[in-house]
Amino acid sequence: MSFRPSAVRATRAIVYTRSGEPSDVLRALTYKPLPPPPPNTLNIKFLLSPINPADINVIQGVYPSKPSLTSLVHEQPVYVGGNEGLAEVKQVGAGVSGLNPGDWVVMTKSQLGTWCSIRNVEVDDVLRVPRADALTEVHGATLTVNTPTAYNMLNNFVTLEKGDWVVQNGANSAVGQAVIQIAASRGLKTLNLVRNRPDFSELATRLKSLGGTEVLTYDDLADRNLTNTIVKDWTSGKGIRLGLNCVSGKDTTSMSRLLGNDAYLVSYGAMSKQPLSLPTSLFIFKNLTTVGFWQTRWYKTHTRQDKEILMQTLVDLVVQGKLKEPEHEILTIAAQDSDEVAGQKIRDTMAKLLGGQHGKKVLLRIE
Amino acid sequence: MSFRPSAVRATRAIVYTRSGEPSDVLRALTYKPLPPPPPNTLNIKFLLSPINPADINVIQGVYPSKPSLTSLVHEQPVYVGGNEGLAEVKQVGAGVSGLNPGDWVVMTKSQLGTWCSIRNVEVDDVLRVPRADALTEVHGATLTVNTPTAYNMLNNFVTLEKGDWVVQNGANSAVGQAVIQIAASRGLKTLNLVRNRPDFSELATRLKSLGGTEVLTYDDLADRNLTNTIVKDWTSGKGIRLGLNCVSGKDTTSMSRLLGNDAYLVSYGAMSKQPLSLPTSLFIFKNLTTVGFWQTRWYKTHTRQDKEILMQTLVDLVVQGKLKEPEHEILTIAAQDSDEVAGQKIRDTMAKLLGGQHGKKVLLRIE
Repeated sequence: MSFRPSAVRATRAIVYTRSGEPSDVLRALTYKPLPPPPPNTLNIKFLLSPINPADINVIQGVYPSKPSLTSLVHEQPVYVGGNEGLAEVKQVGAGVSGLNPGDWVVMTKSQLGTWCSIRNVEVDDVLRVPRADALTEVHGATLTVNTPTAYNMLNNFVTLEKGDWVVQNGANSAVGQAVIQIAASRGLKTLNLVRNRPDFSELATRLKSLGGTEVLTYDDLADRNLTNTIVKDWTSGKGIRLGLNCVSGKDTTSMSRLLGNDAYLVSYGAMSKQPLSLPTSLFIFKNLTTVGFWQTRWYKTHTRQDKEILMQTLVDLVVQGKLKEPEHEILTIAAQDSDEVAGQKIRDTMAKLLGGQHGKKVLLRIE
Repeated sequence: MSFRPSAVRATRAIVYTRSGEPSDVLRALTYKPLPPPPPNTLNIKFLLSPINPADINVIQGVYPSKPSLTSLVHEQPVYVGGNEGLAEVKQVGAGVSGLNPGDWVVMTKSQLGTWCSIRNVEVDDVLRVPRADALTEVHGATLTVNTPTAYNMLNNFVTLEKGDWVVQNGANSAVGQAVIQIAASRGLKTLNLVRNRPDFSELATRLKSLGGTEVLTYDDLADRNLTNTIVKDWTSGKGIRLGLNCVSGKDTTSMSRLLGNDAYLVSYGAMSKQPLSLPTSLFIFKNLTTVGFWQTRWYKTHTRQDKEILMQTLVDLVVQGKLKEPEHEILTIAAQDSDEVAGQKIRDTMAKLLGGQHGKKVLLRIE
C-alpha cells in the first residue's frame, strides 16, 4: 500500500457539465494547484460544505439560482456543486484588508461552488465568521442558509413579545429546528407541526428538548376540538401572528386557520409540491399577509454591515449554547480516494438523499 | 284614488328578524315618527342606499360584520338591512358641531341599517360629504364602499408611477370600474380581466371608454404566447407590481403569473367561491406579497381626519369628471305603497339579484 505524499496532493471538486439527477451527472474532478490569489481575492480551503435540498434542485436545473461555469485551471469549464460551506483563508491577494490567513469565512454570494477543496474567491463574496471555542466546523458550515432563514423569518415580519406563539410546519427540518431554538432563546413559544409517523412521540420529545413548546401532526389539525379549544387554551385565546411554512398544500391550509388577526404566513419551501391554497376570507377579514422568504435575496438586498451583524448574532447564539449543531453526518472524500471512488461516493449519497426522507444533514468534507 | 297627506307619512324600513335568504326574510315595516335626536346624534333622512352583494351575505348570516338589533320606537327589535347610503341631515341634537340640516352624510360605521327613510344616528358614525354640483345622489350613495376600496387598493400597497400597470380581475364589477377610472386619473395603465361572454367586445369597449387600457378574458390567460409575449410587450417587459383580485380560484392563479418581482396581490372578494391558490415559488423567488383589503377595517383603523381627506379626494375626482356614476337602476318604494307591496318589491328584487349576474347596481329609494 502506497501513499501519495501530501505535498503533491491535488485539489478536487464535485462537478457537473449538464443539468440532471445528481446521482447521474456528478463526478469528482482533480485539478492542478491554483495560482496565487489575484488582487482583492482570497485563496480559501473548504473545511465542510453541506448538501442542502436546494443544491439538488440546482443540479437538476429547476432552481432559480443558476451557477456559473468555472474553469478550474486547465480543465474544460464545469459547474462546481454546492452553495454553502465553511472555508479557511489560506492566502490573501493584494488589497485585501480585514481578512487574514487562518480566518474562517462563509459565502454570501449564492452558487459559488463550495463542494471543492481549494478555490480563489472575490473578497466581496465571503464574510468572516468570528471564531469562538464553542463554534464547531459544523456550526460554521451551516450558518448562511438555514440558520439565518430561521432568524430572519422570526424577526423581519411581525414584532413578537416574550410569550407570543409561532406556528410552523416541517418543524423537524433544519430550518424548523433552528426556529425552535431561536424562538426559545427569545422566550417565544412554538407550535410545531410534523407529518404523522410511527416514531412521533420520539420526535416530539426531541423537538421539545430543543425548546419546542408543543408538537402536533398535520392529521391532528382535522380535529376541530383541538384547534378550537386546546390550541386556544395554549395561546390564552391570543391569535398566533406568525406562521412559517415549508410544506404548502392542504396541511398548510389547515395550519393557516390557527392564525389570528393581522398574522403573517411566511413561506420558505413547498415540500408537498402543492400550491399554497388559502380561503380568500383570511386575507380580507382576518388581514392575513402571505409572503415568502429567501435568504439568497436577503444577501442581495443587504449591506456588508447587515451581514456582519447577522453573523455575529448567530455566533453569539451558538456561544451562549442556544443553537446546537444540526443533526448531521459527514461524507468524507479522502485524499487517497481516486476520482472514480470519490465520484461514486457522492453519487451514492445523492441517490440516498433523492430516495426519501433522510433525517440528517449531510456535510461534505473533501480532504 | 286617495292620497295620504305627507304630513302624516310614516317612516319605513326594510327589516328582518332572522338570517336567511333575503328573498324570504325581508319585509317592509312602517314605524312611527322618531323623537327629536338626543345629544350628539343626528336625525337623518336617507336619499338613496345601494344593495351591495355583501348586504345579501349579511342577511344570510354568512358575513363577518353582524348588524345589531334595533328598536324602531314601539316595534319589536329588528335588523335593518343595508350598510351604505346617502342621507340628508334633518335635525341635529345638542352638542353637534360641524353638521347642519341640509348637509349630506354617509356612514362610516358598518351595518348601521341604511335601508330606511329616517333614523337617528351617532354623529361619530357619519361623515359629511362635501356638496358639489357635479356630485349626484348616486355618486354620494356609492362613496363609502366600492370607490374607496378601489382608491385604497391603488394607493396603500405599492408605489406606482405614471405609466405603470395594474392587473385586475372582475374588472366589470363596481370596484373594478372604479379602479379603471382612478388608475386612469393617475396615468396608470390597467390590464382588465373578465369572464368570457357573448358580448365581450361590447364590454371591452365600455371598460376602455372608462379609461381601461387592455381587456382580456380569463380564458385568454391559457395562451402562453399572449402572456409571455404580448403582455410583456404592453408592459415593456417591466413586471406588473399590483394585482387586484375579487375572483380567486384558478383564474387568479393564472393572473398571478402576470405579476413581476416584488408585486402585491390584493384580494377584496372571491366570486368563484374557490380558495386563492398560488405556487409557493412566487412568494419565495419572486417576492410576491398577498394581502386582503376590507374597507370596513380601514374605517375602524383610521382617524376622522383620514376619512375626511379620503372623502374629499373622491368628491374631487367626481367634480373633475374622472369618476362616473356606476351603472345602476333605482328601486323606489313609493310613499303610497303598502308595507305588503313594498316588501314584495324588495323580495322580488333580491330574488333577481340572487338569481344571477345582475350587471347594474340597484339603489333603493324609500320615499
